[in-house]
Amino acid sequence: MDETALLQQAQAAARQGSGHTYTNPVVGAVIVRDGQVLATGYHQHFGGPHAEINSLRHLPDPQLAEGATMVVTLEPCSHYGKTPPCAAKLIEVGIKRVIIGQLDPNPVVAGRGKRMLEAAGIDVTVVNDPGDLNQAYNFFYQHKRPLVTLKMALTLDGKMNQMGQQRTIITGKIAYQDSQRLRSEQQAILVGERTLLVDNPQLTIRNQSLDYPPIRVAVVNDADQLPTQLHIWDDQAPTWILSRQPSQREWPANVRVITDSEWQPVTIVNFMAQQGVQSLLVEGGSTVQSRFLTAALVDRLVVYRAPIVLGNGLAAFNEYQGNPVAFELVQERQLGQDWRVDLRRK
Amino acid sequence: MDETALLQQAQAAARQGSGHTYTNPVVGAVIVRDGQVLATGYHQHFGGPHAEINSLRHLPDPQLAEGATMVVTLEPCSHYGKTPPCAAKLIEVGIKRVIIGQLDPNPVVAGRGKRMLEAAGIDVTVVNDPGDLNQAYNFFYQHKRPLVTLKMALTLDGKMNQMGQQRTIITGKIAYQDSQRLRSEQQAILVGERTLLVDNPQLTIRNQSLDYPPIRVAVVNDADQLPTQLHIWDDQAPTWILSRQPSQREWPANVRVITDSEWQPVTIVNFMAQQGVQSLLVEGGSTVQSRFLTAALVDRLVVYRAPIVLGNGLAAFNEYQGNPVAFELVQERQLGQDWRVDLRRK
Repeated sequence: MDETALLQQAQAAARQGSGHTYTNPVVGAVIVRDGQVLATGYHQHFGGPHAEINSLRHLPDPQLAEGATMVVTLEPCSHYGKTPPCAAKLIEVGIKRVIIGQLDPNPVVAGRGKRMLEAAGIDVTVVNDPGDLNQAYNFFYQHKRPLVTLKMALTLDGKMNQMGQQRTIITGKIAYQDSQRLRSEQQAILVGERTLLVDNPQLTIRNQSLDYPPIRVAVVNDADQLPTQLHIWDDQAPTWILSRQPSQREWPANVRVITDSEWQPVTIVNFMAQQGVQSLLVEGGSTVQSRFLTAALVDRLVVYRAPIVLGNGLAAFNEYQGNPVAFELVQERQLGQDWRVDLRRK
Repeated sequence: MDETALLQQAQAAARQGSGHTYTNPVVGAVIVRDGQVLATGYHQHFGGPHAEINSLRHLPDPQLAEGATMVVTLEPCSHYGKTPPCAAKLIEVGIKRVIIGQLDPNPVVAGRGKRMLEAAGIDVTVVNDPGDLNQAYNFFYQHKRPLVTLKMALTLDGKMNQMGQQRTIITGKIAYQDSQRLRSEQQAILVGERTLLVDNPQLTIRNQSLDYPPIRVAVVNDADQLPTQLHIWDDQAPTWILSRQPSQREWPANVRVITDSEWQPVTIVNFMAQQGVQSLLVEGGSTVQSRFLTAALVDRLVVYRAPIVLGNGLAAFNEYQGNPVAFELVQERQLGQDWRVDLRRK
């Protein structure tokens, strides 16, 4: 097998950790000798052993590591924490060659792992191909802020809702399930005050228990004026209320109220960055969506499109008044009678 | 080969005639003996020999027809015109068995071809599978009116145009070429007066010479008030002006003016039906589109979607005020940076 095929195998292993590694990247590794893959491993969950260690554990005989090649999707770590760094372990067991999918953009590693291996005489190749792994992780360390995804369900004619209706469910079951999966990939989910009050959303991932459910974030004028029976007060996930007025109330343990008289997309995103949030899903409503677009803070757009014409209805980006914004089509696929379109900022 | 595979082969042959048979259906035929396909044929152009005759001509030896099976996508014709009907020819050459994809809905045939064959002792099977062939032809004879397709180019947020702009080209080159192909499949293309005056469209198929270009149809208030330099006056295709005021002017040979003080979707579609028009493409603008939707006269919807957010712009179906209209998703596919969505009325 060539390097590309081996890296793809490591990337496939990495993907098995999706949704379980929280702020850690997903990582996969394979160990090769004489063209044969002897072991694979991946980072299974936040706090657990890294992919490199897991792949070593899966060798039929630990001695086989000596002189072998390891293909790993992300640069082995170099920092001493609770355990010694992976790079030190690879040196210790006698790995001869390391093929790295991408260097780790996290400044605590950032090339140090590679240099540590090279200093020990290991032959290191960096392919510079992250595949589709760790998009938010990479974005976060490159741009110093979370990757912002805007999610919308729209009719054929670009409407979110019928006028005067409380809430119109326009997409079907398969699109709904897919949108739950999209949520599960995020570290935080944001809604505006009108959506919070009108829809009273749960902002959780139904039918799935996550070790680190996304933080529920709502931007409101005055946290103390919010009704007490909202779903976001339950203990299913952390809740952060970004309030323009300071709060005098007592809150449950999972609720944080953060006050800033000027909450707007840029201050929200900067605050999330400070908190180490790597990915933010903006769910609506139309005011919040238009403001994020105006602030040029929509990195990815996911549209669930229903085959319905409403005509008279609440338009997506109703309040957006700027220049046309061009996106790049990443993919579109059918979801039952609906379809999903993924785009990224151009 | 089984019947299904043979019928698919005949359907593939039929498709070669697409765009050349005008108001005739596309038809394909294969001749089989001892499980071997000996000849194929299709209806190549309006006025030319039918598929059955072409397949017989392609036999290596005419004697081989005797005792053979013919698989034909559409019921052989039964009416004596300039030439004897195909059914008579099949009887004459000694075809023993005929497998028919679908009966011909055209009342001049409508089961007579099948009965003629059976009366001659031929074993006839009707599969009842038209495949994707002759959708407009079948629709026309079933519903006694043209199949109406509405075509729109829309942004992500369902806008057709920026406000106050003459005309915004929002989709790219591949979508444009595809929309030309969509036009070439139609017998008539309709626009409203505003689109005619603002866009001055050619309503022809660029880079393709068609024996029967689609009729260019415009609905206007007063034909005599139209400017003389419009593209639709050229001789590239027939032009029909549906005018609410009677005309006093002289018109070029390819231009017809038809007066009715009440032109609206239902009267337009009925008039087209009388004229034998089997397929009508409604291209816009938004008023015409909204009216066809209100009249429940949109059978198919083709949306070319561009990855752009306009925010402030002219919305599709701006003037539609009725109940939500549900469509059924037929297919969606990527066209460069844009994508095309095909839907049909539910």
